[in-house]
Amino acid sequence: MTILLTNAWLLTIDAAMNVHENGWLRIEGDTITALGSDAPPEVPGAQVIDCQGDFVMPGMVNTHCHMGMTVFRGLGEDVDDRLYRYILPLERKFVDRQMVRAGTALSALEMIQGGVTTVADMYYFETEVGRVAAASGLRAIVGQTLADFDPPDHKSFEEGFALIEELVAEFAGHPLVTPSIAPHAPYSTGLAVMERVARWSADHPGVPVQMHLAESDLEVKWARDTHQTSTVEVTRQAGLLKPGLICAHCLQLDDADIALMAEARVCVATNPRSNGKAGRGIAPVEKLRAAGLPVGIGSDGAMSGNTLDLFSQFAPVSMFAKLLAGSRKPLPASSVIRMATIEGARVLGLSEKIGSLEVGKQADLIRISLAAPRLHPIYDPYSALVFAAMPTDVTDAMVAGRWLMRDRSVETLEPARVVADAMQVAATFKAEMREIDGGAR
Amino acid sequence: MTILLTNAWLLTIDAAMNVHENGWLRIEGDTITALGSDAPPEVPGAQVIDCQGDFVMPGMVNTHCHMGMTVFRGLGEDVDDRLYRYILPLERKFVDRQMVRAGTALSALEMIQGGVTTVADMYYFETEVGRVAAASGLRAIVGQTLADFDPPDHKSFEEGFALIEELVAEFAGHPLVTPSIAPHAPYSTGLAVMERVARWSADHPGVPVQMHLAESDLEVKWARDTHQTSTVEVTRQAGLLKPGLICAHCLQLDDADIALMAEARVCVATNPRSNGKAGRGIAPVEKLRAAGLPVGIGSDGAMSGNTLDLFSQFAPVSMFAKLLAGSRKPLPASSVIRMATIEGARVLGLSEKIGSLEVGKQADLIRISLAAPRLHPIYDPYSALVFAAMPTDVTDAMVAGRWLMRDRSVETLEPARVVADAMQVAATFKAEMREIDGGAR
Repeated sequence: MTILLTNAWLLTIDAAMNVHENGWLRIEGDTITALGSDAPPEVPGAQVIDCQGDFVMPGMVNTHCHMGMTVFRGLGEDVDDRLYRYILPLERKFVDRQMVRAGTALSALEMIQGGVTTVADMYYFETEVGRVAAASGLRAIVGQTLADFDPPDHKSFEEGFALIEELVAEFAGHPLVTPSIAPHAPYSTGLAVMERVARWSADHPGVPVQMHLAESDLEVKWARDTHQTSTVEVTRQAGLLKPGLICAHCLQLDDADIALMAEARVCVATNPRSNGKAGRGIAPVEKLRAAGLPVGIGSDGAMSGNTLDLFSQFAPVSMFAKLLAGSRKPLPASSVIRMATIEGARVLGLSEKIGSLEVGKQADLIRISLAAPRLHPIYDPYSALVFAAMPTDVTDAMVAGRWLMRDRSVETLEPARVVADAMQVAATFKAEMREIDGGAR
Repeated sequence: MTILLTNAWLLTIDAAMNVHENGWLRIEGDTITALGSDAPPEVPGAQVIDCQGDFVMPGMVNTHCHMGMTVFRGLGEDVDDRLYRYILPLERKFVDRQMVRAGTALSALEMIQGGVTTVADMYYFETEVGRVAAASGLRAIVGQTLADFDPPDHKSFEEGFALIEELVAEFAGHPLVTPSIAPHAPYSTGLAVMERVARWSADHPGVPVQMHLAESDLEVKWARDTHQTSTVEVTRQAGLLKPGLICAHCLQLDDADIALMAEARVCVATNPRSNGKAGRGIAPVEKLRAAGLPVGIGSDGAMSGNTLDLFSQFAPVSMFAKLLAGSRKPLPASSVIRMATIEGARVLGLSEKIGSLEVGKQADLIRISLAAPRLHPIYDPYSALVFAAMPTDVTDAMVAGRWLMRDRSVETLEPARVVADAMQVAATFKAEMREIDGGAR
């Protein structure tokens, strides 16, 4: 099956940032086989789609998410102790395979509608996440979490590792879903378990490791009190600071930490909306990138960042860099779009396959309508994407040559049913919150 | 003509923040005459609209904008010297009545589509802004700018005041468009002209005064070098710091400035996206509100903030307050929505007329579809509005009982023509920019 996109404003995000204002792109099977800006070729039997001048660009890469948690979206907003007051009790009582499926399906639906085609997830009952992601057609890295705070799916690290073995067995060789091991954070696993993860990882070189790192003051205090050093150094001592480690958040870093991370060639997933909403601080994105670390953008879970598209993260990540520097110049719009695509792919170890529109790469792409008056005039397509476009402008999404959405209609999920399932979970949570709040809301 | 909205999730934004989950609202002529959450009344001959459970709330109040500048949207993005390199040369060469009409029409279209029903504007050739705003059906305060940097419509302050007299004459008594006088900023008018504005204002009590205040380091330096004090104190010395003065930005303030502003009962328009993108800093919104000052939200011009809806400002204004405090709690979502509605109305001196859905107030309201999966679950409607809703979720907008948009179709402007006119201006600018950049893009 050959698909030919014509009359597209092609943003390739290749190394030269080539843009073809009147571009075309050929897809054969799951692969991009040709593209250009001259007259499109004649391809007998191809499905030809006239993109009417719309942007066509690589699908976006959400480098950090907890898809199952989308059923918590907006719960306990603006409450400082909401984690202990609401979330942990609700998770312990209600998080099961069915809830994870409901949250993951809602997340997949929203991401496809908002232009994300690849996601890195970490949560519980992660085989369910992998199954729903596979059914939705998304490309996904699915990480089974390991943590010591009595999480809903494992009572011991033994049980946690067993879940990881199951996950790896189920998705070994899957074309789109990659199993992953996800120690929650240094303070919630501890040095011994981190060492065990490092050993396990050395025996499973194709399984990415994901972890929250340097996210909060409490974590910094834990590392200092328990190990008299930084949380990054504890991670290094455990043998986990290795090439390809996906480190989420990375707010509380000093220059020595950044040097350690650069030397180890780890990768960073920054989550500006989640961090900003929590009042936790601003990640030193420009410093990390200047040190040679790839930095991708993550939405974090919807409980923290509320939306799962990357458009919602663009203005924050850009503004935060400019505010840190006191200048308009840092992190220009084109860099933000690189972070959302090719650099995010690098963070997930997928940049040979996806992240740019180039011959030989997987056909993971999105089309963005320019119909909204809000987008015009367009002096610079990257500025329009970063500061004026909305997830609702995405009309079509493709992963590995398969359309997941055509003309705003998601083809792999049933939207009404997905939303109804999530609302049913929310009704249970609302009842429990009334209990927690003593009947007084 | 009577309109009855039924089956609405009514967010009244009245003093008690009453919400009617299954609410109704009656409009007669330009006025809200009844509302409730019980069974809707029978109103023979009324146009009955079933809102299908959607949010219905007051139209949003954009307290600071430069509508004519929307033709500059995204121009010179991320360039530190873009004001002197591009904007001022382009303004001097090309800003005329036709360009101001084109930019204002594009702005009005975008604002109506994005849920703004009232805007405070300041720019050049402001009678044109008033005319386009009136034709669009928006409620508007239109401020003729006075400045000393050779602006495109006045070569002297004499000419500037003449333009203001024309503006006031043209819109005196207009039901929706209020003329306003807009000294650009302390540093760009100077003490003597500010004193003249203060005298003129005392003679014209119904004409609001708008001004940029404490926006940049350069302004702080100007006040210190020229008057050995703060820019707020210079404004006070000029007699301009009076009840109702609309002060835009207000970034560079110390506690003494805030006390002066509170004593004088001025009003503030904060522009978080514009300020963040410029790397200029974070306005002390919580401090200003704690001092009793009403603070509304502004988009600033599209050259600075890119979009003109207020949804784009919600996450930034909220995150900035939380980051300043290092906590999730400051500026909860309900306060953000108050700032976007009733508090914004107070900033513009219109809170007796608009800003909440209450009997006797003008029927300025919007309907927001809850169809998007991204909005669910909804535990708190204000959280959903602040952190998950998009301007594209707004389906209907009404000002003074007149529908400006029904089911996403703007009824008062011709969208295709408006966008085409703006693109024509942009083509001229692009050619000039190539000249400025010496032919090398």
